[in-house]
Amino acid sequence: MLDPHQLAALAAIHRRGSFELAASDLRVTPSAISQRLKGLEDQVGSLLIIRGQPCRATPPGLRLIAHFDQISLMESQLTGDLPGLPEGPRPRLRIALNADSLATWIVPALAACEGMLFDLVIDDQDVSQDWLRRGEVIAAVTANPKPPQGCDSLALGALRYRATASPGFVARWFAGGLTPQALQLAPMLEYDAKDRLQSRWLAAQGGAGLHPPAHRLPSTHAFIDAARAGLGWGMNPEVLARPHLESGALVELVPDSPLDTPLFWQFPRLANKGLEPLTGALKRAAKVGLVAIGTIADKS
Amino acid sequence: MLDPHQLAALAAIHRRGSFELAASDLRVTPSAISQRLKGLEDQVGSLLIIRGQPCRATPPGLRLIAHFDQISLMESQLTGDLPGLPEGPRPRLRIALNADSLATWIVPALAACEGMLFDLVIDDQDVSQDWLRRGEVIAAVTANPKPPQGCDSLALGALRYRATASPGFVARWFAGGLTPQALQLAPMLEYDAKDRLQSRWLAAQGGAGLHPPAHRLPSTHAFIDAARAGLGWGMNPEVLARPHLESGALVELVPDSPLDTPLFWQFPRLANKGLEPLTGALKRAAKVGLVAIGTIADKS
Repeated sequence: MLDPHQLAALAAIHRRGSFELAASDLRVTPSAISQRLKGLEDQVGSLLIIRGQPCRATPPGLRLIAHFDQISLMESQLTGDLPGLPEGPRPRLRIALNADSLATWIVPALAACEGMLFDLVIDDQDVSQDWLRRGEVIAAVTANPKPPQGCDSLALGALRYRATASPGFVARWFAGGLTPQALQLAPMLEYDAKDRLQSRWLAAQGGAGLHPPAHRLPSTHAFIDAARAGLGWGMNPEVLARPHLESGALVELVPDSPLDTPLFWQFPRLANKGLEPLTGALKRAAKVGLVAIGTIADKS
Repeated sequence: MLDPHQLAALAAIHRRGSFELAASDLRVTPSAISQRLKGLEDQVGSLLIIRGQPCRATPPGLRLIAHFDQISLMESQLTGDLPGLPEGPRPRLRIALNADSLATWIVPALAACEGMLFDLVIDDQDVSQDWLRRGEVIAAVTANPKPPQGCDSLALGALRYRATASPGFVARWFAGGLTPQALQLAPMLEYDAKDRLQSRWLAAQGGAGLHPPAHRLPSTHAFIDAARAGLGWGMNPEVLARPHLESGALVELVPDSPLDTPLFWQFPRLANKGLEPLTGALKRAAKVGLVAIGTIADKS
């Protein structure tokens, strides 16, 4: 059986970035932290922390931290069932999700779960599931409907996007219409190398294979700001674009041409009970912030 | 002399994430892309791209991409001086900056520089300079006043932060005042492991050494949303917090206790001329969005 004190030391070093801060968190000396990590590394036979500024967990380290988080979560449920048990530290949930979910609909669900601490990892909805498959997070919001082995999947709804730009940008680049030639020249916004939303929308408009020059801005709100400032066009979440579409600061490139991305909540079956309050809160928040799956415009 | 076609292939693979998309961008075959990369890797004697989904540049690969970007930038200036020269592709500028700059003041400056393409790398202001030192970006917005060797540094101004939370959160956790005991229990927001803003503000309030339980939300706007939703307290950029402070959705934990983070624009001296339009636009945008350096509240 793995020693929970050793696991707690590993998690704290990764979370705080240094042995000193981890020691202060756990109210022990830095040398105790160092010994616990060393003991765990010897037992596992892997390097678990890359020493540096900040210290970071290796993939096996992240796997063990997620394991520790899951034990904490299960133990916090025990406290509910056995009121005599002294209350442990709050469970910390490491969750992978897409930036646009964090920017649009998910915060109220997190705020509804008092007693949990969240450690959010942002990655594209097409790959956020990989974090769960690697065991580095306890749950994921993903676009991939098929859950990893041993995991449950719950359809949340779809995030609706609109291809938007400023009226000045449209006048400058698309005065002659949205021709392939114009689309090939007009600057586009891209979140990162994994972001396929613009390509999918272009493909849905008959522009598969077009590769416009692209700015890379890894921030949901910077996407909106940059579209408004005329830097480029991009797929913006409808809920963020709506006020600007209504005020006229943004226009849709093709009227009423949304792109919907279905999202799923996935977690190991073993964590089901511990995650229940969060799962319930996510369902409620998704009903407000996402489009119901039955009415989706495009599943590609 | 390095072959610019090989460099362009390397940059395109990294940017698009695959050999196929890079080939389509450069209008050559994937096998030509593969040969060019191979030729460059043989010449340099290092692996430059980690093959995967997506393909990513190694540190030596990033170094060469920044070199290629700098050549493109210098060449774009030549076109200005020698009007007979045919126009090349738009220069692409890879820039490291902090998320809060992207969320608050910098987008208008980028939008003012038509003809440039931006590839933004987000990292904490305390470490964004490392990207420049490693030669992986052509310029950086950083909190470190001392530029790396061979680089110029321009003081932009300071980003002002306010320690904020929802009134309900303050009533719940700080009903008895902002005591060390209360601060040690009330959940705090943290951007990532490198984020020291909350600790600095706590230290300025006499709370050095406190380690409240912390949620980790790597998004500027999620910080504001989470503070409003009562998930925790955190250091929010004043310009984003202001409307919520005025409406009463957020309150300052300690009235009029801002924390200012001075920011500097740094780039290799050789790139000075090519960056001039952007540097000018940044100065103008900083005058609007940042606090003048002379009036800074705390430089720690």
